[in-house]
Amino acid sequence: MNTGRDLAAIRERKPLVHQITNFVVMNETANATLALGALPVMAHAVQEVEEMARAASALVLNIGTLSDEWVAAMMLAGRAANRAGVPVVLDPVGAGATAYRTETARNLAEDLELAVVRGNSAEIATLVGREAEIRGVEAVGAEGGAELAWEAARALGCVVAVTGPVDYVSDGARSFAVANGHELLASVTGTGCMSTAITGCFLGVRPDDPLEAAAEALVALGVAGEEGARKAKGPGSFHVALYDALFSLDPLTIDSSARYEDA
Amino acid sequence: MNTGRDLAAIRERKPLVHQITNFVVMNETANATLALGALPVMAHAVQEVEEMARAASALVLNIGTLSDEWVAAMMLAGRAANRAGVPVVLDPVGAGATAYRTETARNLAEDLELAVVRGNSAEIATLVGREAEIRGVEAVGAEGGAELAWEAARALGCVVAVTGPVDYVSDGARSFAVANGHELLASVTGTGCMSTAITGCFLGVRPDDPLEAAAEALVALGVAGEEGARKAKGPGSFHVALYDALFSLDPLTIDSSARYEDA
Amino acid sequence: MNTGRDLAAIRERKPLVHQITNFVVMNETANATLALGALPVMAHAVQEVEEMARAASALVLNIGTLSDEWVAAMMLAGRAANRAGVPVVLDPVGAGATAYRTETARNLAEDLELAVVRGNSAEIATLVGREAEIRGVEAVGAEGGAELAWEAARALGCVVAVTGPVDYVSDGARSFAVANGHELLASVTGTGCMSTAITGCFLGVRPDDPLEAAAEALVALGVAGEEGARKAKGPGSFHVALYDALFSLDPLTIDSSARYEDA
Repeated sequence: MNTGRDLAAIRERKPLVHQITNFVVMNETANATLALGALPVMAHAVQEVEEMARAASALVLNIGTLSDEWVAAMMLAGRAANRAGVPVVLDPVGAGATAYRTETARNLAEDLELAVVRGNSAEIATLVGREAEIRGVEAVGAEGGAELAWEAARALGCVVAVTGPVDYVSDGARSFAVANGHELLASVTGTGCMSTAITGCFLGVRPDDPLEAAAEALVALGVAGEEGARKAKGPGSFHVALYDALFSLDPLTIDSSARYEDA
Repeated sequence: MNTGRDLAAIRERKPLVHQITNFVVMNETANATLALGALPVMAHAVQEVEEMARAASALVLNIGTLSDEWVAAMMLAGRAANRAGVPVVLDPVGAGATAYRTETARNLAEDLELAVVRGNSAEIATLVGREAEIRGVEAVGAEGGAELAWEAARALGCVVAVTGPVDYVSDGARSFAVANGHELLASVTGTGCMSTAITGCFLGVRPDDPLEAAAEALVALGVAGEEGARKAKGPGSFHVALYDALFSLDPLTIDSSARYEDA
Repeated sequence: MNTGRDLAAIRERKPLVHQITNFVVMNETANATLALGALPVMAHAVQEVEEMARAASALVLNIGTLSDEWVAAMMLAGRAANRAGVPVVLDPVGAGATAYRTETARNLAEDLELAVVRGNSAEIATLVGREAEIRGVEAVGAEGGAELAWEAARALGCVVAVTGPVDYVSDGARSFAVANGHELLASVTGTGCMSTAITGCFLGVRPDDPLEAAAEALVALGVAGEEGARKAKGPGSFHVALYDALFSLDPLTIDSSARYEDA
């Protein structure tokens, strides 16, 4: 892993990250993408998603406020990305909370070739058929992340990132535990979705290594979260400081702040 | 009223508040819900709203950017909540501004069993068939709030909160006037919608007493607004400080900052 | 041009600005509109857009996250505004990035009588049939803005604002170059959309002179951007300071900060 090198590549190449995401976080993931140094574009109409996905360096699919039209657009965009070799990240927001979310997440995971799936422990457990407790979009009782990431990666045939107090990322062979981050990240909506968007940014410059791209994304957001928390008096000021911190991440020093190990 | 006790209950129980709300404020009401200590979930697809509403502790319906699909989802979710005994709050954003909003607000109020309706004076007046002046979603000339809240509560058969410089909350028998708040709240979009979402949070722990839940919500947002205004140089910094203040509200002291009386 | 006089008129008359815009920036353009002193209203249902547009002082159409239903609503609203003499601003977000955006932008420009079109150089070039390079919604290589604004104004028969490091505004006869602004504006999503919304605010009080209204809007946002940048440590704090600065713009002094010339 070399988060600094890949962050520098993001800032230089400015990968276009096409995001079909939810209404709650759209502004935030766009701003996080920009703050990191990449270019976001949001487009969800079936008339244009294939063209946009093909032009992008990565595609982010997030089912946080899904409906049939949006799911159809995600499927179209995902297939176009697959055909064009554009890496695809899936965020199965709320899988397990309703049958509709569970089915949609499973359908997307089955029909598309995904580079990375990023979710909380309940969402990932649901995706691989395990029992899980979820309240709305929050996992209740997040345990066994390391094993879960490994198992899900093997079941889904792609890299899986299970985020929580410690994040676990696995491709079914190698695994990382990433300990960067701060509890204030849980006090702002959409920081999970942000981590998925940032995974898209890193995939945009590391399409060859989705495991490292996903782990580096979590390091980057985690280090920014730690920095942001130093300036924060609560979730409002933390949210603001988080964008400043993403913007100020230094490719030369970020790896010295990274806290991860083989899991 | 015991706002501190109920705020502490929100933080301990973390009620899930299902919100079908408008695109403009979705991020804000989610963040206000989190900052207060509850859990937000946004879901609007007809395939899942009934399941989500049944799993929630309160349901918030807000017609700020309505369309037929969203209204149908609100009706489905509202009926499911009614059957399951989950309290429902309605925010009739812009009722009176267009015939479509007026009719939709009236249909929802007629067909659903509402715990609370929260709106500005023009929206509430429209809902009960009075003449009112509204420009977009802003009431023009907000007068007679105390009488209006009382009259509307009797007409609608539920608690009604009419917010403005002073807020009036009534169940048609008892009424409160809540004087907490700050004029900067009117300089940020969605603070009215936030008050509705926070009403949902308090209802989640006080389903038995919607009158006190609604009044306590307005005390909580008002006190946070006063605290936020102390740190603000304008609407941007106020908005940030408001989330910090909601997060920092102290159950032990909030009742000493509450300014309300029987109306 | 007299930005101070027209800013004072906005604060006094509070023009209602009806915005049919994209999901990413809806909250931001509403807050920018409020911070400046006008009233935003977002409404996109075909059942109500005509009524809302007629009641407004200006209509803003923005195709940033377009779909067929929203485009149909834009067309309906635009025609109603035209019939009622309400000025219409178009923001052709991403024209050139996909065929769907290009066609939609051209259709709106052809079928509606526009007061102003505001876009980046690639979007405006696309609209008048020139070759342009765009990545997502970002123009690549913004050159020839002065000539482009002039040419597009003549081709489209309305005022055209081409924004970038220097903004060019033309009605095909007179042209202005506006140099206010700050590079941090490009680090936050939606600041282009904000400039379109603010153009709507100025049009609301200067429907008779869309050229000056458009140029004044760019002065106002640019001066606020310069002020906001003084307080900023990155895009997060800049974003916050920008709203404070819009709110604090002083009608008595803003013209002394304006940097524009005939182009």
